[in-house]
Amino acid sequence: MEKRDALMICAVVVIAVLTGLPTPARAMAGDALKAIPFTDVTVTGSFWKARLETNRKVTIPYNFKKCDELGLIDNFARAAGFMPADTFQPNRNNRPSRECDVYKVIEGASYVLAKHPDVVLDLYLDSLIAQIAAAQEPDGYLYPSRGFLPPEKMGRGGTKRWERVGGSQELYAVGHLYEGAVAHNQATGKRTLLDVAIKNADLLCKAFGPGRCEYPPGHPEVEIGLVRLYRVTGAEKYLNLAKFFIDVRGRSETHRLYGVKNQDHVPVAQQEEAVGHAVCAGYLCSGMADIAMATAHQGYVKILDRLWHDVVSTKLYITGGVGSQSKGEAYGEAYKLGNETAYCETCAAIANAMWSQRMFLIHGDAKYVDVVERVIHNGFLSGVSLGGDKFFYVNRLASEGKQERSPWFTTPCCPTNIVRFLPSLAGYAYAQEGDMLYVNLFGSSTVRTTISGNNVRLIQETEYPWDGNARIRIEAERAQEFAIHVRIPGWARNQPVPSDLYRFVERRPREVRLEVNGESVRQPRMEKGFAVIRRKWKTDDMIELRLPMPVRRVRSHEKVVGNLGRVALQRGPIVYCAEAVDNNGQALNLILPNDASLKAERADLLGGVTIVTGQAKALHKEADGTVTERKHTLTAIPYYAWAHRAQGEMVVWLPTSAESVKR
Amino acid sequence: MEKRDALMICAVVVIAVLTGLPTPARAMAGDALKAIPFTDVTVTGSFWKARLETNRKVTIPYNFKKCDELGLIDNFARAAGFMPADTFQPNRNNRPSRECDVYKVIEGASYVLAKHPDVVLDLYLDSLIAQIAAAQEPDGYLYPSRGFLPPEKMGRGGTKRWERVGGSQELYAVGHLYEGAVAHNQATGKRTLLDVAIKNADLLCKAFGPGRCEYPPGHPEVEIGLVRLYRVTGAEKYLNLAKFFIDVRGRSETHRLYGVKNQDHVPVAQQEEAVGHAVCAGYLCSGMADIAMATAHQGYVKILDRLWHDVVSTKLYITGGVGSQSKGEAYGEAYKLGNETAYCETCAAIANAMWSQRMFLIHGDAKYVDVVERVIHNGFLSGVSLGGDKFFYVNRLASEGKQERSPWFTTPCCPTNIVRFLPSLAGYAYAQEGDMLYVNLFGSSTVRTTISGNNVRLIQETEYPWDGNARIRIEAERAQEFAIHVRIPGWARNQPVPSDLYRFVERRPREVRLEVNGESVRQPRMEKGFAVIRRKWKTDDMIELRLPMPVRRVRSHEKVVGNLGRVALQRGPIVYCAEAVDNNGQALNLILPNDASLKAERADLLGGVTIVTGQAKALHKEADGTVTERKHTLTAIPYYAWAHRAQGEMVVWLPTSAESVKR
Repeated sequence: MEKRDALMICAVVVIAVLTGLPTPARAMAGDALKAIPFTDVTVTGSFWKARLETNRKVTIPYNFKKCDELGLIDNFARAAGFMPADTFQPNRNNRPSRECDVYKVIEGASYVLAKHPDVVLDLYLDSLIAQIAAAQEPDGYLYPSRGFLPPEKMGRGGTKRWERVGGSQELYAVGHLYEGAVAHNQATGKRTLLDVAIKNADLLCKAFGPGRCEYPPGHPEVEIGLVRLYRVTGAEKYLNLAKFFIDVRGRSETHRLYGVKNQDHVPVAQQEEAVGHAVCAGYLCSGMADIAMATAHQGYVKILDRLWHDVVSTKLYITGGVGSQSKGEAYGEAYKLGNETAYCETCAAIANAMWSQRMFLIHGDAKYVDVVERVIHNGFLSGVSLGGDKFFYVNRLASEGKQERSPWFTTPCCPTNIVRFLPSLAGYAYAQEGDMLYVNLFGSSTVRTTISGNNVRLIQETEYPWDGNARIRIEAERAQEFAIHVRIPGWARNQPVPSDLYRFVERRPREVRLEVNGESVRQPRMEKGFAVIRRKWKTDDMIELRLPMPVRRVRSHEKVVGNLGRVALQRGPIVYCAEAVDNNGQALNLILPNDASLKAERADLLGGVTIVTGQAKALHKEADGTVTERKHTLTAIPYYAWAHRAQGEMVVWLPTSAESVKR
Repeated sequence: MEKRDALMICAVVVIAVLTGLPTPARAMAGDALKAIPFTDVTVTGSFWKARLETNRKVTIPYNFKKCDELGLIDNFARAAGFMPADTFQPNRNNRPSRECDVYKVIEGASYVLAKHPDVVLDLYLDSLIAQIAAAQEPDGYLYPSRGFLPPEKMGRGGTKRWERVGGSQELYAVGHLYEGAVAHNQATGKRTLLDVAIKNADLLCKAFGPGRCEYPPGHPEVEIGLVRLYRVTGAEKYLNLAKFFIDVRGRSETHRLYGVKNQDHVPVAQQEEAVGHAVCAGYLCSGMADIAMATAHQGYVKILDRLWHDVVSTKLYITGGVGSQSKGEAYGEAYKLGNETAYCETCAAIANAMWSQRMFLIHGDAKYVDVVERVIHNGFLSGVSLGGDKFFYVNRLASEGKQERSPWFTTPCCPTNIVRFLPSLAGYAYAQEGDMLYVNLFGSSTVRTTISGNNVRLIQETEYPWDGNARIRIEAERAQEFAIHVRIPGWARNQPVPSDLYRFVERRPREVRLEVNGESVRQPRMEKGFAVIRRKWKTDDMIELRLPMPVRRVRSHEKVVGNLGRVALQRGPIVYCAEAVDNNGQALNLILPNDASLKAERADLLGGVTIVTGQAKALHKEADGTVTERKHTLTAIPYYAWAHRAQGEMVVWLPTSAESVKR
């Protein structure tokens, strides 16, 4: 053994001791809490099914088309030598690393393919993947622009490989490659893209690590991708590399330049609060959570608990959005949750849901699902139009009327994130640990699983989120004792979020009702937010859950100064807003007195929604310049559906008196 | 001018004088009889719409998948150098020239794309076309296997370009390329494939012609493609080359080797009857018809009239199929129309319909449409399963039970022809010449056109072919005088085919009724098989046509010896057959006495069809070996729908007595 090798082995051991050795044993154990994969869940209900259908039929093709038009797909052909390099037209939409968007749409399309066989889509993916594979360099490196652009034109891509992983997104892009490759493999059984990913990951394993390249990616994502690759291949080196990328963060003197923005200011173990770029943070924490689950790494869990609690206690918008600061697309300071200035990137909402879902899998606590539910019904869903071809990058909570969804962005991370996140959502609905089945999200759907070899299906029927009643029918190959954990949402237990950041004005007696086969379950055993029903289940047993859905006012923590004297409206998981188009052309002049009664009613607009109306007031500027209050019938619509009809003012947090109306 | 050039010009003049100079003027005239393009026709009715939807959703993707699996698409990538040549696996399904199937599926997919925008299909076509373009040699030559296979492995492709155009199908394949390219251009506006086609056709114009290569293609098709290219580009050289390929047929001493099989035994002007390969003949005559229309070439018309009359008088099956002889896939002798030995290739049915449609456009006579109608409802439609993914190459008229549709063929010309012919059929439904609109085919559909700048739509509603009533509503931007020619099918005028080859047993009084705005049109002016209604039409005017649809027996000409003492059943345009599955497990033992009454009734099978039942007899072999006649209730189904439920006997021509039952 040469001296240099020996040193490197030492380095590996030191790092391993510092950060806790991966122990994949637990991850492989069959009884850990696991999400039931989306492939075993079929969404049957209208609310999510409509969005999934639009995603499949409109948004995914639309995204492919955009990637094609902008030349991102041709970049692979150019790198492969299939197209002359001089066909490249430099433009802001086609910068090094943007091929990540192609990988993300492939990921989304693969999820769709797994549930909806589609020969032409399958063949199109094959043709894309053939180009990607041909663009890969012989040693596995894949960053197509480097294959046809001279070094001086590589911009933030850097003149050499991995020279600028802070900004080049070389590692970020391949993280999405790995996710897309695993999804494609699972959907089609084909190894074409998976082999590309493995070859690339093997190269990273050689290039990065103690004693080799010792700097983390600027934008995390590769960690998530590596753990996914580890899960399908069983190759621990991918898990180790993911862990290396986490642990080297904040350690590399030369690269600590990323600083707070990229969570590189101190080692993760010393990070006390959520800071910096909100998408980076969400992906970083998701990756840490994946590693924690795969290795039983309690150190990571401690860090994650702290950071997650910081977010939900001080940095979470009522919509589930995060990021109050456009500079650096960052969380911003605690309790600084401006509404008209809210950044709330759609990707940050997705990252927050991804992270919260993993926190649930670590802890089995429904409070994390409460956050997932809030995000997906509000601050995420606002990011894509009902038609599926317009997008919000930034999701404001109040608007003077300048906002509208855009067909595309120079950095189109949000559209391409939406297409993969939406179809993956079915995988958030149910979970299982041994003989315990978890019903996390409500929405008409069926799920199949096995419990000790027994085939079991749950058939959930509900009009959620418009109605709080859900019926869950059981089908079991043979009668068997097992436990069904039914999530009782925080909003039905007087707790809109798992912190004191928001609270309902009207606290209500517990009115949740649960029945099994028509008989009321009085005081069900509650465990971490779930009602647990353990019994011998047989086919056609029926659980009925009744969650009353009154319209409720929400108040912010008093430190959120912009929301003082204001309330938001929530019904079930849906947060409401008032739009000018429904309120005589204005919304920022509305006042909702505390004593105004509120009513929910079904409306035939925006694809069918429940709206909220109430006797409110509106400020009017009279001819003589004085401002008077007039009676006004408030109409509020679900926040996610705003900005579909006409540009105009919008407000989530309604002032309760004229004093709170600030302009 | 050099001597050699002068000679070549002489040769051109000689050929031109011999065959008649092209005179494109008439083709450009606006008032020639023209089919209204399928893009202006929307099929709304269930019979054809269901088949078109299956073609779009199942058959086209299925065909692409097959072309992909068999390596036909990778051939382009290999020729382009995108894939190593050694990835080629020689197999019977991937022989030189088989890329023609890819072009045909592109043609079909383009027709679909023109009516059903589909981003992923569009992008997939782009990716295919990029490979095709890259496989094209710099001078325009395109025959991908020559790009990666050594000459000695080229088989029937020949060691050099055009060395063996009799069997190499080099010209046949590019004919389909041109058709696909024009379709793709018209559907998408893109020139990508059109430019490939033009570059290739320009090369052919240089390589072939008097004094250069002077031999015709073995399998005609390039002529049709060249005229289509001429129509979109206006370049007369394509028309001239097409005409050259026709006129050189039977003239080249060295290549008369193709002989009768490929209609190369004598020059076309001397061909007196339809002989040889039935698909070749149909394509050859279609090409001649195209040129005749583009150049007002009366010489060609005379030839075509003679050959077409020969087919419908002596060589046409009751199903519209042609080709009685499997050897050489040929027409066979006059009146030799064996049933169990019928070849009736699906492609020959298509070629027959293509040719007959062109004969209609030349002559404006409904008798040609009668043949089109017979083909498409019977001997063509049997070629594809109701599910869209199984095919008959050969369409027998009687079966001992061994036939079933196949998923694919070594030569898959039929599946890939079906996918392009079906969506093109909407272009056969209506035609126009000046202010005369022709309603040729019945089926719920709408058509739009302009008459002297006036926007006119016809909205046809009917349950055809199950019911003979059709309502045609007129929409006109402004009231205007014009003529609507409504085809009165031959079957409704006691004439199943425009010859004495078949006749109805029961001649019926003329019962066709025609109404305009509820008033009967007594004795409408009949012109070439069309009822002509000329009047000032305005929006909401309504034509109602009532064609009684009794079940009728058909007899063959006495020279068709196999059908002596037998009848076939026809109702409307639909020819029936008896299948074992409906008739106690046998069909070849059935007897339909002349006095048996027959009844049509709607049945909920095979996608919904009208079946025919009647009191018949069946021969039974008794235990002692004697054969007795027993009463039997005959059930007959539409011929096109046979072989969907169980393998078994099938018969179209039913014996009227025990003497006619031959086994």
